[in-house]
Amino acid sequence: SEVKKIAVIAGDGIGPEVVGEAIKVLKKTEELFGYKFELEHGLFGGIAIDEKGTPLPQETLDICKNADAVLLGAVGGPKWDNNSKELRPETGLLGIRKALGLFSNIRPAVVFDCLKDASTLKPEVLEGTDLIVVRELTGGIYFGEKFRREGAQGEEAVDTCVYNVTEVERIVRQAFEIAGTRSKRLASVDKANVLETSRLWRETVNRIAPEYPDIELEHVLVDNCAMQLLRRPSSFDVIVTENMFGDILSDEAAMLTGSIGMLSSASLGEGSFGLYEPVHGSAPDIAGQGIANPIATVLSVALMFKLTFGYQEAGDVIERAVKQVLDAGHRTGDIAVDKSKAIGTTAMGDLIVAAM
Amino acid sequence: SEVKKIAVIAGDGIGPEVVGEAIKVLKKTEELFGYKFELEHGLFGGIAIDEKGTPLPQETLDICKNADAVLLGAVGGPKWDNNSKELRPETGLLGIRKALGLFSNIRPAVVFDCLKDASTLKPEVLEGTDLIVVRELTGGIYFGEKFRREGAQGEEAVDTCVYNVTEVERIVRQAFEIAGTRSKRLASVDKANVLETSRLWRETVNRIAPEYPDIELEHVLVDNCAMQLLRRPSSFDVIVTENMFGDILSDEAAMLTGSIGMLSSASLGEGSFGLYEPVHGSAPDIAGQGIANPIATVLSVALMFKLTFGYQEAGDVIERAVKQVLDAGHRTGDIAVDKSKAIGTTAMGDLIVAAM
Ligand SMILES: CC(C)[C@H](C(=O)O)[C@@H](O)C(=O)O
Ligand SMILES: CC(C)[C@H](C(=O)O)[C@@H](O)C(=O)O
Repeated sequence: SEVKKIAVIAGDGIGPEVVGEAIKVLKKTEELFGYKFELEHGLFGGIAIDEKGTPLPQETLDICKNADAVLLGAVGGPKWDNNSKELRPETGLLGIRKALGLFSNIRPAVVFDCLKDASTLKPEVLEGTDLIVVRELTGGIYFGEKFRREGAQGEEAVDTCVYNVTEVERIVRQAFEIAGTRSKRLASVDKANVLETSRLWRETVNRIAPEYPDIELEHVLVDNCAMQLLRRPSSFDVIVTENMFGDILSDEAAMLTGSIGMLSSASLGEGSFGLYEPVHGSAPDIAGQGIANPIATVLSVALMFKLTFGYQEAGDVIERAVKQVLDAGHRTGDIAVDKSKAIGTTAMGDLIVAAM
Repeated sequence: SEVKKIAVIAGDGIGPEVVGEAIKVLKKTEELFGYKFELEHGLFGGIAIDEKGTPLPQETLDICKNADAVLLGAVGGPKWDNNSKELRPETGLLGIRKALGLFSNIRPAVVFDCLKDASTLKPEVLEGTDLIVVRELTGGIYFGEKFRREGAQGEEAVDTCVYNVTEVERIVRQAFEIAGTRSKRLASVDKANVLETSRLWRETVNRIAPEYPDIELEHVLVDNCAMQLLRRPSSFDVIVTENMFGDILSDEAAMLTGSIGMLSSASLGEGSFGLYEPVHGSAPDIAGQGIANPIATVLSVALMFKLTFGYQEAGDVIERAVKQVLDAGHRTGDIAVDKSKAIGTTAMGDLIVAAM
């Protein structure tokens, strides 16, 4: 079949380790399904700051733009936390989202059987929780004008939150589409009782809703959503919201599943291009020890197969292999009940590949 | 003793019912401690829209300004949800905060023994949770300029988030002071890796911190805080944050205790003046049925005694009376395990008064 180009950005901390295992899984699908992948590696985040003096080198951006999809490990770490804005890994993250037009962040929050007890929520509350947060990723207060100025009361800082109808429409449509492939329920989250951008958001959602008559729509205020996620997580199917609210709510949703170390995510633009990464961070405290859990990154490959390449079957094979390895009782340290029996990053990757 | 003036704003839904019981408690303290309270009632919220054509009539504002403290029931309801902005209860709420200079919202999140099991969190996770969210209440994106404009991509909406150093200083100082009376731990929540207002916030916190060398300070990013509240709620003591983040996090924190129907709150300005209200809403679905739980409002009176009047002992008496009634097994419907044994609003108020 056709050669697919994947930009591989290992990043910082445990990034290179978990990405290494995901690549083994990729290679295995070449063998099993006859796919051809061309991998191009790029520097990004802290390591790019160290080696190139910028978190997002032009060269890396070019590799990404030239690829069909991007696989990202993780970026950041205490080493760069006190850098000036231009020399921080997060700045690279915001830059790559904007430069690649990744306006939609898809964050599934599901409960893994083997991690049922890892949640701080009661099992009966969590039962059946399987939701997706669709977060707008290139607009809002993240990208609006920011500045300092001298005011009557001393120095002032300003952030601007801007949304135009087109930006809202495209993310909302995508969320309706996703809901259509699932339980057909969409919760649109805003703060329409206070914010003008939220009022535009809600109007737009209401205008588009009739195009999707089979989707049950509810509007939820962001403060109420933060509560209802705790109260009735299993009642949500797809949640769509703007950038800042999505940042907060997608992390809350991920944490309540107890499975945060296992969750994958996709950032999508127009067309099939996408950037895939685990939800967990760079975990500098355990980096380089060979003990990180590669599953979230492996599952990000499965998501890439399904959403970007349309390799549904191979995606299923990867997901089933992960499940099989977990069902057989294999665990990395982060998810092991008996830590003394925990296996390392490479061992976990090998087991998944073997199970494929 | 000196006469204290209290502005009483019953508001909408169950507001009048729960405020009625709180007034009985107030009166009882006149008898027990020789206090003198002068109550002046004002229209506010939906009922003010209906009767005066505005959610916050000047007359009500004058009553509040002329008082030592304000007791608020609850405002809002579906009846006014589709009104234009100027005719919505929330607009009154934002207006009263600004007009009275209530820059600080104090939201304790504690677990009531009798409600331990009402939380969706596991009891062992919740164990020992007793935190206060200090939310900035008159700045940020709530009060910055908001408008629509025609952009290249169609209609645009804009919200502006502004903070000046003085605004940040006063709320942060107050949070340090509160932490000093408690477990001496302060978590300052921001999004300093993205927002300019958050960078100003963090700089200001760091500049003030040396004045409070006995307080252990941590900076927590808002997305991480939404997670850590779920992960380790009992590790927090005082959380201080800006308006929008505080709206979301204080509701999340309240809900995780399972005690949201029992929680009181204070909104404070300069000096001892304050507005006190239950955290729960106007609950239009059960309004007028005499079944609402008055405890959060009664406890708001206790908070008023302590924070505004310096009536520490009387505040303790109220809190102990509530505890005693609960320990004796009395419950309103919302907190009753056996709903058939639930008592009504008045009965609960009477029992608390009797226990004082
Ligand atoms: C690192 C930070 C800028 C980023 C964000 O807020 O978008 C992160 O929290 C995320 O959710 O990917
Ligand atoms: C009603 C709304 C404007 C208000 C707010 O967002 O401040 C409410 O959610 C609150 O927290 O008191």
